[in-house]
Amino acid sequence: MFKVVGLVARIDQKNAVKLAKKLMPHIENKGASVFLESSLAKRVKKTASALTLEKMKVDLIITIGGDGTILRTCLKIPKPEPPILAINMGERGFLTEVTPEEALEAVDRCLKGKFVLERCTKLSSFIGKEKLPDALNEVFITSHTPAKLLHTKIWRDGFVVAECRSDGVVVASQVGSTGYSLSGGGPVLDPELEAFVLTPICPLTVFHPIVFSSKSTVSVELLKPEKAAVVVDGHYQTEMKANTKPITITKSEQESSFVRFDGDFYRRLKARLLFPRGEKV
Amino acid sequence: MFKVVGLVARIDQKNAVKLAKKLMPHIENKGASVFLESSLAKRVKKTASALTLEKMKVDLIITIGGDGTILRTCLKIPKPEPPILAINMGERGFLTEVTPEEALEAVDRCLKGKFVLERCTKLSSFIGKEKLPDALNEVFITSHTPAKLLHTKIWRDGFVVAECRSDGVVVASQVGSTGYSLSGGGPVLDPELEAFVLTPICPLTVFHPIVFSSKSTVSVELLKPEKAAVVVDGHYQTEMKANTKPITITKSEQESSFVRFDGDFYRRLKARLLFPRGEKV
Amino acid sequence: MFKVVGLVARIDQKNAVKLAKKLMPHIENKGASVFLESSLAKRVKKTASALTLEKMKVDLIITIGGDGTILRTCLKIPKPEPPILAINMGERGFLTEVTPEEALEAVDRCLKGKFVLERCTKLSSFIGKEKLPDALNEVFITSHTPAKLLHTKIWRDGFVVAECRSDGVVVASQVGSTGYSLSGGGPVLDPELEAFVLTPICPLTVFHPIVFSSKSTVSVELLKPEKAAVVVDGHYQTEMKANTKPITITKSEQESSFVRFDGDFYRRLKARLLFPRGEKV
Amino acid sequence: MFKVVGLVARIDQKNAVKLAKKLMPHIENKGASVFLESSLAKRVKKTASALTLEKMKVDLIITIGGDGTILRTCLKIPKPEPPILAINMGERGFLTEVTPEEALEAVDRCLKGKFVLERCTKLSSFIGKEKLPDALNEVFITSHTPAKLLHTKIWRDGFVVAECRSDGVVVASQVGSTGYSLSGGGPVLDPELEAFVLTPICPLTVFHPIVFSSKSTVSVELLKPEKAAVVVDGHYQTEMKANTKPITITKSEQESSFVRFDGDFYRRLKARLLFPRGEKV
Repeated sequence: MFKVVGLVARIDQKNAVKLAKKLMPHIENKGASVFLESSLAKRVKKTASALTLEKMKVDLIITIGGDGTILRTCLKIPKPEPPILAINMGERGFLTEVTPEEALEAVDRCLKGKFVLERCTKLSSFIGKEKLPDALNEVFITSHTPAKLLHTKIWRDGFVVAECRSDGVVVASQVGSTGYSLSGGGPVLDPELEAFVLTPICPLTVFHPIVFSSKSTVSVELLKPEKAAVVVDGHYQTEMKANTKPITITKSEQESSFVRFDGDFYRRLKARLLFPRGEKV
Repeated sequence: MFKVVGLVARIDQKNAVKLAKKLMPHIENKGASVFLESSLAKRVKKTASALTLEKMKVDLIITIGGDGTILRTCLKIPKPEPPILAINMGERGFLTEVTPEEALEAVDRCLKGKFVLERCTKLSSFIGKEKLPDALNEVFITSHTPAKLLHTKIWRDGFVVAECRSDGVVVASQVGSTGYSLSGGGPVLDPELEAFVLTPICPLTVFHPIVFSSKSTVSVELLKPEKAAVVVDGHYQTEMKANTKPITITKSEQESSFVRFDGDFYRRLKARLLFPRGEKV
Repeated sequence: MFKVVGLVARIDQKNAVKLAKKLMPHIENKGASVFLESSLAKRVKKTASALTLEKMKVDLIITIGGDGTILRTCLKIPKPEPPILAINMGERGFLTEVTPEEALEAVDRCLKGKFVLERCTKLSSFIGKEKLPDALNEVFITSHTPAKLLHTKIWRDGFVVAECRSDGVVVASQVGSTGYSLSGGGPVLDPELEAFVLTPICPLTVFHPIVFSSKSTVSVELLKPEKAAVVVDGHYQTEMKANTKPITITKSEQESSFVRFDGDFYRRLKARLLFPRGEKV
Repeated sequence: MFKVVGLVARIDQKNAVKLAKKLMPHIENKGASVFLESSLAKRVKKTASALTLEKMKVDLIITIGGDGTILRTCLKIPKPEPPILAINMGERGFLTEVTPEEALEAVDRCLKGKFVLERCTKLSSFIGKEKLPDALNEVFITSHTPAKLLHTKIWRDGFVVAECRSDGVVVASQVGSTGYSLSGGGPVLDPELEAFVLTPICPLTVFHPIVFSSKSTVSVELLKPEKAAVVVDGHYQTEMKANTKPITITKSEQESSFVRFDGDFYRRLKARLLFPRGEKV
């Protein structure tokens, strides 16, 4: 089924690198060829198999790390995106599917086609004509300076929703509703719902999270201060300016897809809420 | 346009009754006939024009009161529901459109057809085979006793979402998202979104509000205690029992519709959040 | 050290009754005499040792149940209260100290004096001249009817704090800050802090929890509706009326005291927040 | 009563500078001498009367601006601090007392001694041996990078309270409880309460605000990442490192004091919550 597999791992984690080393021959033995993300290839001295994320036009990508590794991968890989099998080595592991111990077996099931694909809507955003990379989780508009108030105006399809004074404003996708937006007090969006949610971070006055149809265009205009940071999925950062073009956010035509063996969103949600990896009681 | 008009008013408020008295001849002078809700008819001694809510098959209903008056009216009037012009005399006035001072002019505009209709999705709910009246705002499952914990299990389309220990569980429609659900920490649902939201009231452990597609069937099963109260729109109350049939909630085929002159959901929302009627600073 | 011991258990739980039966001879063998709460005595057919809670003037009380059992016991026993060793058999077990498995050993350590006493401030409250029993956890003012709005005015030492429209108002002690108040969004009060906290339940408009010095007198005046329920520690219920005497709450001269073997408030807090008994993941 | 008065104003606001210009001769006519903060003195070309904040050993300071102006002033002026009369020209005006229109009359009342002094406890903090300037509102520990998780361990008087994963941690004074801490979900602390509150900002897992006695020493240890920013009152910034000395926070011996004409904390609180300056409905 999958003939060409890409491997991505956190190279700052010994165990992640070790697992990558073990997986490569294991997958090749099953008849698929394997490419390694460039820095990983260098780290394990397999530069002949190196491929940058931007060129990773493969049939399947395996990530070894946490949600951060997945988010960074999805920001850069070619579109449409290949499916991702995510092995959890990180602290935030909501998007990941299997533990390192289950990795070999998971790869085998995956290569045999015994899985379901979870398709996740992504967010497309523009600042004027500048296209930002699609967000899997969220677009975050915030001040450059800690605890500095941001004054914004929110629009939906050309109509004013409200002004907002807060540390920042998050617009999260369905799957992103379980990430940073949740910490800011946002609701969980059910996987069957085509929607995204705008959640203010530390609003000065009362401002409730608002859930929009994914058919809507949501815009955030910066009123104050002069500049704000825009962060996509916690890894891509750019800047927007006051009183010029707002940032506009819509549903992307692209999506990310994940290999799931049981596909139970709420089971993962429960596990994540009570036991972030590494924080046992 | 509207040939037969029904009038409903809070008879415990002098000003509401007074306004009803003034509106009746005003509307008749415009060529429409007027029926009065039975208790109002009795109060103003016009029993010849009396009609119970259940029989109010008219072209337009005018309510004089707060959101409570509207909710009680919508629970009882025949389906499909005629449009409602809501004059605000109550404390909770999110659904209402005009102040008493604007009433005459609003009625005139309305009779001339100069308005837009806001259509609001309602919630249909069943406890086993017992059909409850459709909810405009919300279905609320709660203990009979103050501060007594309710242990429930939540389902979506036959799959378990989570168990919940809380004072109660609210399932609110889009328009109901600005009502009781909001006080419980639920998000605002944009009017373009086809969804409803489940919000726990005072959960014992962390439990975030969840937004479901309005295509979903959400069920709430009672695990403990033996009995719970089910309240629809704050006015209709019934009972459910533990470990038998859950309450199932879906989008209703019926809807309520409101006469609006500008139709700006977020303007009303802002006003409501900062200035509930009678609570000026 | 303790010559006379009182035993209280949830008689609707077989295991609680069974443990009580086992503890009685165990304690008597250590040289102390044992009294059983009347309904328990009847249940285990030891009516010769029966004593009502109101007459339980003993050196130590052992409760077998959850927080509810403790709260009910503290409402009724003679003042000043004897120390309590609490064995957890319930769902809410924040106040309890040991599991059923640890019970025998705990009793032995306790009889040898190897423990520390945690002293908990209680709340004294009056409605006009009617004295309510002291609250260990909280005083809760709420409507009789589910989801019915309560309009109150809050006072501190004779000065108006604010008006509040909400489902109810909780005033919680330090130890009670981890109970119902927490579910309503209230903060945790550190055990070294002499304070209590007022937390609104589902406020209509924004109303933050307020923490008062325990030297303060906090009063809650009912403005609407005509009557409200006042619930002390979830078990004692009375009524207050609108526009007459407010309920006034101060620090009580009485306190409850609990046998602790390590005394770590935050360890219990963490356990409670993540694992309410019976809700394992 | 006040013989020497210091004037501080936001020099980026024309109206603030204009008012300062008007106040100077007005105060001199009443027989007091006036010094101007250096940048203000330069701006209005009265450098003969210039004084840096650090040297402003005067009897009364008048600030013209918002809370930010007050906080910056209190960070720098010599200790013990002279009382402050705060005229509101800013957006956050919780600490301010009078509007620009009331300024002249307020100054007159003030010079006649017709006022009360509100004394506000400040927070003293150390990172190892590095003393930070006392905080009037709060000490904020946060990541340098937007939305980057901070992993900290909280201690009270040498005992572990809990670990916390969040965007940041705020420790706020009584008066600071109405500032940034409130936006993070913290409670209001009554002016009679000797306490401070620790509020996590966007915690990853559930973590409630905790209120400590002002006799306590609260420490925050950084576990991850390597460095974090520490911001005092939104204006003074320094850095702390992981796994070395924690930041320790106690009640300061210094306090700030404000001229009040009615001294009603809750009236200001209500006004602030509903109408931050410039955000009329």
